[in-house]
Amino acid sequence: MRLLFDQFMKKCEDGSWIHLPSYEDIATQRSQDFSTFIHAYFPTASEQINKEKLSQGRIFTRSFEDGLGFEYVMFYNDAEKRIVCVFQGGPHLQGMPGFFHGGAIATMIDATVGMNAIVSGGIVMTANLNINFKRPIPLCSIVLINSQLDKIEGRKLLVSCNVQSVDEKILYTEATSLFIKLNPEKEFHIKELVLNSAPPA
Amino acid sequence: MRLLFDQFMKKCEDGSWIHLPSYEDIATQRSQDFSTFIHAYFPTASEQINKEKLSQGRIFTRSFEDGLGFEYVMFYNDAEKRIVCVFQGGPHLQGMPGFFHGGAIATMIDATVGMNAIVSGGIVMTANLNINFKRPIPLCSIVLINSQLDKIEGRKLLVSCNVQSVDEKILYTEATSLFIKLNPEKEFHIKELVLNSAPPA
Repeated sequence: MRLLFDQFMKKCEDGSWIHLPSYEDIATQRSQDFSTFIHAYFPTASEQINKEKLSQGRIFTRSFEDGLGFEYVMFYNDAEKRIVCVFQGGPHLQGMPGFFHGGAIATMIDATVGMNAIVSGGIVMTANLNINFKRPIPLCSIVLINSQLDKIEGRKLLVSCNVQSVDEKILYTEATSLFIKLNPEKEFHIKELVLNSAPPA
Repeated sequence: MRLLFDQFMKKCEDGSWIHLPSYEDIATQRSQDFSTFIHAYFPTASEQINKEKLSQGRIFTRSFEDGLGFEYVMFYNDAEKRIVCVFQGGPHLQGMPGFFHGGAIATMIDATVGMNAIVSGGIVMTANLNINFKRPIPLCSIVLINSQLDKIEGRKLLVSCNVQSVDEKILYTEATSLFIKLNPEKEFHIKELVLNSAPPA
């Protein structure tokens, strides 16, 4: 995992790839934006938010102790509009004995294609996720999630991805997704965001 | 949640509905079956299982402290081949501030349609999950996941589901899924399983 991280950090040196801040950092910074747009589209849902519970809220993918849940880092290539997520899931993500739970894989896919949609579209919401599970992924193995922005049609963003072994010899999962932009007029600047968040090198 | 639980337990009295044991109980009892079938279909993946890590394995949906993650109970109607899952997610399942993460919803959908496939088909694997997210679900709210076995075609099982508010007035999510039976010859008896597992009344 460290080796892969270093390889991608090397690619970041010429500026073609960017090491992305975590969604938690983005969500914290953009919390007011999220709330405004959600309230505009879903006023009832927005009013149902329990303020007390919200204070205990923790981003799903960051709610495990180190090494037990979702361990990942994402890199973004702006010219190619793609993200590579290096993911190593911990032993608490088990489904069938010895393998990842389909829901854990779906979660990392949603996080990766979602981040691709965020950097391309701003405040977005997952509208569809269509996942083909081709092979079970052994628990605790390291995989690459390769995501690609395919198309923007008005407020719709189409993003596809696959999950492969590090040597790219095994294709575990393929997925397509559709995101809806909640802020059609407002643009979002990924580089500004990255500079503000400054993930550790 | 307690009230809903009691209502369903009442429905269990005439035997039309069954309170299902947790997947963890089934997986523990059937661990050898899973391993045998997985090894037959995916020998390489099976050999990659890290035995040491496996001993730390914990079912994804049961890996949170009480009240913080996935709190749920499932009821099965054998005549109608459907499962109702009463689900209350905790604050550690957050995606956008104040709402569930799409991956957490996908996880509970996979768990529910997966259980419907298991009781109908035995040892199964998720092959496809196609989810339409229609509205964001406020964090910590209670929802019903209604799953229905639509069709069995040879080794394929098609299961659909929706996620609704308790009063059934809000449709949050709809999904279809495809499962592949790994044990084509061997039948699986849900009633025997339920009797063996004896969930608390």
